[in-house]
Amino acid sequence: IHTSELSNESVELGEYRHFMQKEIYEQPQAVANTLEAVCNSQSLIPGIFGAEAAAIFADIESVLILACGTSSHAGMVARYWIEEIAGVPCSVEIASEYRYRVSVPNPKTLVVTISQSGETADTLAALNYAKSTGMDKTLSICNVPESALIRNSKLRFLTRAGPEIGVASTKAFTTQLAALFLLTLVLAKQRGRLDHAAEQRHLHELRHLPSAIQAVLRLEPAIAKLAERFADKHNALFLGRGLHYPIAMEGALKLKEISYIHAEAYAAGELKHGPLALVDKDMPVVAVAPNDALLEKLKSNLQEVKARGGELYVFADAETRFESTEGIHVMQMPEHAGYLSPILHTIPLQLLSYYVALQKGTDVDKPRNLAKSVTVE
Amino acid sequence: IHTSELSNESVELGEYRHFMQKEIYEQPQAVANTLEAVCNSQSLIPGIFGAEAAAIFADIESVLILACGTSSHAGMVARYWIEEIAGVPCSVEIASEYRYRVSVPNPKTLVVTISQSGETADTLAALNYAKSTGMDKTLSICNVPESALIRNSKLRFLTRAGPEIGVASTKAFTTQLAALFLLTLVLAKQRGRLDHAAEQRHLHELRHLPSAIQAVLRLEPAIAKLAERFADKHNALFLGRGLHYPIAMEGALKLKEISYIHAEAYAAGELKHGPLALVDKDMPVVAVAPNDALLEKLKSNLQEVKARGGELYVFADAETRFESTEGIHVMQMPEHAGYLSPILHTIPLQLLSYYVALQKGTDVDKPRNLAKSVTVE
Repeated sequence: IHTSELSNESVELGEYRHFMQKEIYEQPQAVANTLEAVCNSQSLIPGIFGAEAAAIFADIESVLILACGTSSHAGMVARYWIEEIAGVPCSVEIASEYRYRVSVPNPKTLVVTISQSGETADTLAALNYAKSTGMDKTLSICNVPESALIRNSKLRFLTRAGPEIGVASTKAFTTQLAALFLLTLVLAKQRGRLDHAAEQRHLHELRHLPSAIQAVLRLEPAIAKLAERFADKHNALFLGRGLHYPIAMEGALKLKEISYIHAEAYAAGELKHGPLALVDKDMPVVAVAPNDALLEKLKSNLQEVKARGGELYVFADAETRFESTEGIHVMQMPEHAGYLSPILHTIPLQLLSYYVALQKGTDVDKPRNLAKSVTVE
Repeated sequence: IHTSELSNESVELGEYRHFMQKEIYEQPQAVANTLEAVCNSQSLIPGIFGAEAAAIFADIESVLILACGTSSHAGMVARYWIEEIAGVPCSVEIASEYRYRVSVPNPKTLVVTISQSGETADTLAALNYAKSTGMDKTLSICNVPESALIRNSKLRFLTRAGPEIGVASTKAFTTQLAALFLLTLVLAKQRGRLDHAAEQRHLHELRHLPSAIQAVLRLEPAIAKLAERFADKHNALFLGRGLHYPIAMEGALKLKEISYIHAEAYAAGELKHGPLALVDKDMPVVAVAPNDALLEKLKSNLQEVKARGGELYVFADAETRFESTEGIHVMQMPEHAGYLSPILHTIPLQLLSYYVALQKGTDVDKPRNLAKSVTVE
């Protein structure tokens, strides 16, 4: 048994009502801590993932990400980054699915496991299964040093989120995303897909990320007000595309976990292939970061359901030109963060679930039936 | 514009109340027709996918399946088959996601598109995008000859489901699965992973499939009764693992489409990572084809929610030894079909959604807001 060394400060509520709220607000610092070594340097090196990283990364053909729950959503965002920026084929699989099926192992695959605790039973079993098939190039992204995942992986990256007490993961998720973006950049650089100017631009954006998160947190009063519109709902649909599809999934999961609203995420393009039949006044639709073209499509998709009171809530980027109209509620983000946009778009969805839970009076930090770390199957 | 030549017989309701009901009952014949050429022969040949199939299949390293909605669930089942039986790496992607992101093209990938109509806008655009990146080894699995997908693909397999009128796809899905299993076997044989005995065994099972489906259809009265328990529900959770996870997704989609119940599917192992918080008497849990070990885990996962009235509905294989107890309702399948089990397990879920819709009095064949073929985005 490993006992974490937690300072008193980090596990006390202080000015906050709930650990989840505190942890949402700790994200600028948690992300800054996670990125510290990188942001202080002038260039990216594989060594941040371990001494053997340069050699291992040079010898891989693909990436396989294994995780559960929120961590798997971080992996799904990373897939878009890794394929587009680093040009490395990447797949993501739910750990409990991977461990029980016969797949096609490729020893030149980097197996990346993600878990806040590093003790998630299915993720650990999936890692060991991958190793048993001859895939020994392993990297764990984890928030707890000396955890089982770390001990069982050749490479490791420790997120520095600090202890996360709320069962619904918040700062662990955004720091995982920061870590995965670093992985993407390191892989891209090693493959000659990141020139000096691009590297400096990315480093600049990463240094700016904590204050960009801070700016988003200032949406809190507006989101608290928005939450009133969800408090009497039992269902919701979250839509996203590309990098923001997993963020829609994460937003829906948060709402499920702590406010007990049955929120489900769909890739935006799938709306017409079924879920549109569900939409009415009791089933609000939340669109995460649609661009103008996608929003036009969504508006036309939802035209028919307006008569039944269907409402669309849009978390829009700063650059889009949406305005709220009848049945369409737009919340604009303070700035557009490019590839890092999924990290920023996570914040309002965390706040939304938190404020809806407050309205509903649920036990925010210990939602019914859920454990912080799922160390059994 | 291509006009299908439909006989009067095939588009009349006859003894049925709805086209969906008729099409559910046509599945033994539709599957038999789809498999006809193969089942009459003594061996599998690549030629059933087109004249160039042998050459193309010999030159691929992986399979990429692109589809929307129900067809994407067929693709997800095929992924498990293709990796396990044929040993070929396979990925499945929602067409609307694939077409709008930058991925890593591999010209030695077989690009498989699946669509009942062959006119699904996103699937067609995804195919054309894949081709634009240099991936020209293309196969379309489709129910309509001369459709856009067929015309734009080098290889093709026509399902012979006959015209499907009900908006919620039924026989198109099971015939797609039959086609994808043939693809799996052909790829496996070509790679030397299917000896003569195994091939004969699979052919035998395929010949038996229509009567196996017929046997499952005889569960109708029991499922009609079960449907009464869902008629007052607004939410449901469907769980599956492996080959049956996509079937859980398909079962949930059917219930969404025609009975307007917000049913969502999860990989069974993900239950404890969030959705378990939602379960109470208003959120029944449906488990598709769990084996004994998985059911034991589910039972222990659900132990805590029993006090809140949580109910578990199990669609079990013939070989399992579950019995209904308090809060656990077991429906046993007449036989276990091995790899073809996902096809059989689809049937009771189709019937469930149909009977729930009857109870609710919805427009079964034309659910609100949905079109039969999504030929616009």
